[in-house]
Amino acid sequence: MFVLGIDPGLSTLGYGLVESTHPPRGHRAGVLRTDPDHPTERRLGVLYEGLDQLFDELSPDVVAIESVFTNRNLQTAISVGRASGVAMLAAANHDLEVHEYAPTAGKRGVTGSGTADKKQVQIMVARLLNLSDVPSPPDAADALAVALCHLRAAPLKATT
Amino acid sequence: MFVLGIDPGLSTLGYGLVESTHPPRGHRAGVLRTDPDHPTERRLGVLYEGLDQLFDELSPDVVAIESVFTNRNLQTAISVGRASGVAMLAAANHDLEVHEYAPTAGKRGVTGSGTADKKQVQIMVARLLNLSDVPSPPDAADALAVALCHLRAAPLKATT
Repeated sequence: MFVLGIDPGLSTLGYGLVESTHPPRGHRAGVLRTDPDHPTERRLGVLYEGLDQLFDELSPDVVAIESVFTNRNLQTAISVGRASGVAMLAAANHDLEVHEYAPTAGKRGVTGSGTADKKQVQIMVARLLNLSDVPSPPDAADALAVALCHLRAAPLKATT
Repeated sequence: MFVLGIDPGLSTLGYGLVESTHPPRGHRAGVLRTDPDHPTERRLGVLYEGLDQLFDELSPDVVAIESVFTNRNLQTAISVGRASGVAMLAAANHDLEVHEYAPTAGKRGVTGSGTADKKQVQIMVARLLNLSDVPSPPDAADALAVALCHLRAAPLKATT
């Protein structure tokens, strides 16, 4: 099974593909960026096109997305909400199921702590996936972390 | 000029088309609904398809959308944010500019008060557009109100 993890954001959207081998294998990870000087609708269009292409190229079986972090301010939540809405739509248009995980779940899954910092997440994601370099920028590592989180949760979900 | 007003929401998304005649003329208005029992990504897909079809059928020149009301709770804001993100994306994919207006601006524009209730907005929208019936449900009236709000604001924007 291939899981595409997504860390949504309007300026920077992280993605990372993980395969459910034992141990799990990390594949392509990176970020999509949009120009803050462009209007929101155009930036959302850039994200959608980028994701649409990624789904075509990477052919994931399922999508795991970080839910919008509700402790951040409302304007950020709305902006992340828009990006995550567009990401979910892109997944739906590729007939992919979307599973949401809280950012703390992703961090806890890879570091043991829901409040781990970005550097720690990067280091542990690299270790768990046997990567020679830490995934960078942090948004790419966060995306891999949420994909790993789904790998751990998926068997439990399947039994319910 | 034809303005398509949108009142975004995941369960109910209102839309209404207004023409910049003197006085302005109201055209089609209504709502798109999604099934709360369906997963979010599928509901967003339904909204996108519905809007895509509306843009094709109604050929608006510009889109006016109610911004996410920041006094509501965070979960609602995220959910409305997702719906508005998908609506903005649909507009971008039709090469349409999107203008955002606060819900209070739409209400104030048609009733004189930013805190007018839904019924008042419905009555005043019907009066301003010379409609024989009040637009219903309220989401459709709110969408017409935000379109009217853009008609009033557009000439001012053009001079800046």
